[in-house]
Amino acid sequence: MEFTVLKTCGKARLGLLKGTHGVTETPCFMPVGTLGAVKGLTWEQISQMGYHLVLSNVYHLYLRPGLEVIESAGGIHAFTGWNELILTDSGGFQVFSLGKLMKITEEGVEFRSHIDGSKHFFTPEFVVEFEERIGVDIGMVLDECTPYPATYEYAKHSMERTVRWAERSINARTTDKTALFGIVQGGVYEDLRLKCVELLTELPFDGYAIGGLSVGEPKEEMYRITALVAPELPFDKPRYLMGVGTPLDIITAVENGVDMFDCVMPTRNARNGTLFTSEGKINIKAAKYKKDFSPLDPNCNCYTCRNFTRAYLRHLHVSGEINGIVLNTIHNLYYYSRLMEEIKEAIKRGTFNKLKEELAKIFTK
Amino acid sequence: MEFTVLKTCGKARLGLLKGTHGVTETPCFMPVGTLGAVKGLTWEQISQMGYHLVLSNVYHLYLRPGLEVIESAGGIHAFTGWNELILTDSGGFQVFSLGKLMKITEEGVEFRSHIDGSKHFFTPEFVVEFEERIGVDIGMVLDECTPYPATYEYAKHSMERTVRWAERSINARTTDKTALFGIVQGGVYEDLRLKCVELLTELPFDGYAIGGLSVGEPKEEMYRITALVAPELPFDKPRYLMGVGTPLDIITAVENGVDMFDCVMPTRNARNGTLFTSEGKINIKAAKYKKDFSPLDPNCNCYTCRNFTRAYLRHLHVSGEINGIVLNTIHNLYYYSRLMEEIKEAIKRGTFNKLKEELAKIFTK
Repeated sequence: MEFTVLKTCGKARLGLLKGTHGVTETPCFMPVGTLGAVKGLTWEQISQMGYHLVLSNVYHLYLRPGLEVIESAGGIHAFTGWNELILTDSGGFQVFSLGKLMKITEEGVEFRSHIDGSKHFFTPEFVVEFEERIGVDIGMVLDECTPYPATYEYAKHSMERTVRWAERSINARTTDKTALFGIVQGGVYEDLRLKCVELLTELPFDGYAIGGLSVGEPKEEMYRITALVAPELPFDKPRYLMGVGTPLDIITAVENGVDMFDCVMPTRNARNGTLFTSEGKINIKAAKYKKDFSPLDPNCNCYTCRNFTRAYLRHLHVSGEINGIVLNTIHNLYYYSRLMEEIKEAIKRGTFNKLKEELAKIFTK
Repeated sequence: MEFTVLKTCGKARLGLLKGTHGVTETPCFMPVGTLGAVKGLTWEQISQMGYHLVLSNVYHLYLRPGLEVIESAGGIHAFTGWNELILTDSGGFQVFSLGKLMKITEEGVEFRSHIDGSKHFFTPEFVVEFEERIGVDIGMVLDECTPYPATYEYAKHSMERTVRWAERSINARTTDKTALFGIVQGGVYEDLRLKCVELLTELPFDGYAIGGLSVGEPKEEMYRITALVAPELPFDKPRYLMGVGTPLDIITAVENGVDMFDCVMPTRNARNGTLFTSEGKINIKAAKYKKDFSPLDPNCNCYTCRNFTRAYLRHLHVSGEINGIVLNTIHNLYYYSRLMEEIKEAIKRGTFNKLKEELAKIFTK
């Protein structure tokens, strides 16, 4: 993997990330394709929107379809048909949130599948091996995702274990075709976060993520920790804020030097009928859209906005038609893609603050 | 509406149907878009596959989003964003099968909505008015869909009422922008079917449908009635076999002179994982596809077959990902589109029998 910072505007950075299967500009948003598919869209649609890096998930892919199937297919790209960059989250977060966590030991984490209750064990070494064997472009290390709230003691132990696991992950690497990112933990405790940065940056990771945020803490905590941690991470490596966020969260993090994002928000919201527009968020279910024959967003050029009205989208949504999901997802991911384009443009032109003010006006009214 | 028979091969006909919003070659298959959307696909995908006429449904559109919304939008084309031909079934079949039928009188049919149980009343005149006001290219008259089995007496009364309703429908017309088709009923009784043809063809319909088939009767009955009725219908008007069917059903009906078809089979089957291929039907759920990295159909050129494997489609299906529905639907509708192309080609070249034999071999093995 290669990463180059091309330009800065304050702490915000414009960069280029080259992996084994492609290139993406940064700051970038990664659409979430948990099971090897972005819900509702074809890869063709994803790529045409300007996304060249998508996120998938070790926990989910390990359970379904499983390592053997993906490896037999010739790797995750051959299996899914997506020919550009893939990053996989390690599954640490999913083990803690989705599966039934059984036991964390120094060796690893025991959990039950959320599908059939079967028992499984992940070690840091296994996660790296899995990511390398399925051939992702960027793998995340197995970490212990500190919940919120957590006591100082809990957060400290959990951060320290995450660092020890990170070291084991580095030692388990066998190829540089799969880049490996470390994950900063430490809860909302500033000294723990900084200690974690200090220890992880001694290890030769290709990039660094800020984990354990967007797990229920107040927004200000998330902003505070991001602003503290991001600038401390190596300048020449990509910085990834996991599981974030809203347009305002993203631009605020970019302002602090973050390069990469992922979040289920645009895709999950689309399925619930919540849509991002140039005038703020709207819920398409609302009765007031019943005879609203204007486009979803008059300032948007996506397939949905060019061809359909709010009234039609509302009809599909309330009728439970899957076309509603498809058209809403097209729009929300297009919105996020355009947001990232605007952010990159603003860094280039030095108009970053103006853009942030505009977004703040739209999304806090 | 204009209809021209361009060529025949035995009783099979190659034709051209021009309506207010476009043109389609016949024989044609109409994808089902009950609620004003073909489940899982964009109009762009539908049109690119070669479909220029889709089916929707008065019963469903009347309940959701309702006449007022569609009319305010400027009609069904403006509302849905589909700019080519639309035919609407009258809802007769849905009132009998889906809603809670309350009472059939000479005046019309009282039913309860399957959505909220609310009470409604359809007359033949209202259905024509609805179809004209939403601006469909082809409307179907309200008929009494005779169930199977039905006694001779029941079928006779029901057929006679359908004819009286047909006459009222003709009298209710106010524009020729919406073509109107009569529907032949009469159950599985040959004299009733022929009597119905005789009476309906005295009325100036733009086309004629064969209704009351594909309602649970044995295949041979469906074939027998189609073979009896289709050739008796006016040569210069389109003939539409409602709710049919499998590839073999379609080619058999074309052989008897039918021009138009609709069926939920390709779309509904896609959602259930049942896929039409050049080697017959397969169910993608089957364990044998777990590590089958060949295309769904090696002889198919659809987006799904060009880009994905059976193993990936199986993974999406068993994981409940809506992308499975989308990719399966793309394939099945592409398959039906290609089937209709092959049928038209065979009529042109006089190789109709050969194609029928090939299909029979594939789908009866």
